[in-house]
Amino acid sequence: MSAQIEMTGALEPRDGWVADRCPMAAALAVVSTRSAFLLLREAFYGATRFDQFVGRTGISEPVAATRLKELEAEGLLERHPYQEPGQRTRHEYALTEKGADLLPVLVSLMRWGDKWAIEGGSGVELTHARCGGAVGVSLACSKGHGVTPDQIELAVKPARRGGRRRSST
Amino acid sequence: MSAQIEMTGALEPRDGWVADRCPMAAALAVVSTRSAFLLLREAFYGATRFDQFVGRTGISEPVAATRLKELEAEGLLERHPYQEPGQRTRHEYALTEKGADLLPVLVSLMRWGDKWAIEGGSGVELTHARCGGAVGVSLACSKGHGVTPDQIELAVKPARRGGRRRSST
Repeated sequence: MSAQIEMTGALEPRDGWVADRCPMAAALAVVSTRSAFLLLREAFYGATRFDQFVGRTGISEPVAATRLKELEAEGLLERHPYQEPGQRTRHEYALTEKGADLLPVLVSLMRWGDKWAIEGGSGVELTHARCGGAVGVSLACSKGHGVTPDQIELAVKPARRGGRRRSST
Repeated sequence: MSAQIEMTGALEPRDGWVADRCPMAAALAVVSTRSAFLLLREAFYGATRFDQFVGRTGISEPVAATRLKELEAEGLLERHPYQEPGQRTRHEYALTEKGADLLPVLVSLMRWGDKWAIEGGSGVELTHARCGGAVGVSLACSKGHGVTPDQIELAVKPARRGGRRRSST
């Protein structure tokens, strides 16, 4: 039970409101497929060209093409033309700020998978270039305190209204 | 390009190995559906009983039943019997340590969704009970340094082999 997040203010009790503006659900509406996450991983690992994305993820070309188009339409990747001598114009993909901001999601999935989903661990790790320490994600508050799960509350933001009370504009 | 993670050692160049033990892919093989994430969210928000999970997520009863069974089979939730006077035995669900460990994934999705996927923000936020600061996730290394994306390297763990070289036991 120590993992439970406490409801506060207008959000208590939980059955009194509808999570119709849940930011987690909104994020998953933008990116949720395994293939999208694999393509984003490879963008972080340096892939820019279509054949790199396909070769490094093992995703079929048609699925990769569709998914890259979706990631571009959602503004997570942007496409730039390039041309090699004697070749037709092709496009390369780069993470936008919006796409790059997903890094904590990918890193937290990697750390969880390493601990819980691969027996013996994956054998690779993210390290801090400056000191060699293993990179992970930690829960922290805007004032710089480390936060344990039992210290988290769900609150309506000041000067705003949350949940169903909010206008839907 | 500052979002790019640098390959090091045996992992350079990227085309020289297959990410067949990717911990992110392994994590997504355990939990990837939107409905699973919504049910886990409600477990963190205090739901324990089937009707609470259904009512608070808006997921249909059959899908919720299937998904809860999967989350239990994967060891993210555990099921305990309870009985109210005059009622038949029912079950309630609680997060296991493995399930509770997914909190950084959910929080990072929430923070991203709040910033990028809901115009004007969601109106609710996770706060630190002790100081009221907004709770988010931050990238940090095992030695306590804050880490920016351009300071991250992918490395083979010491005393282990990564990628395809690893035996598959």
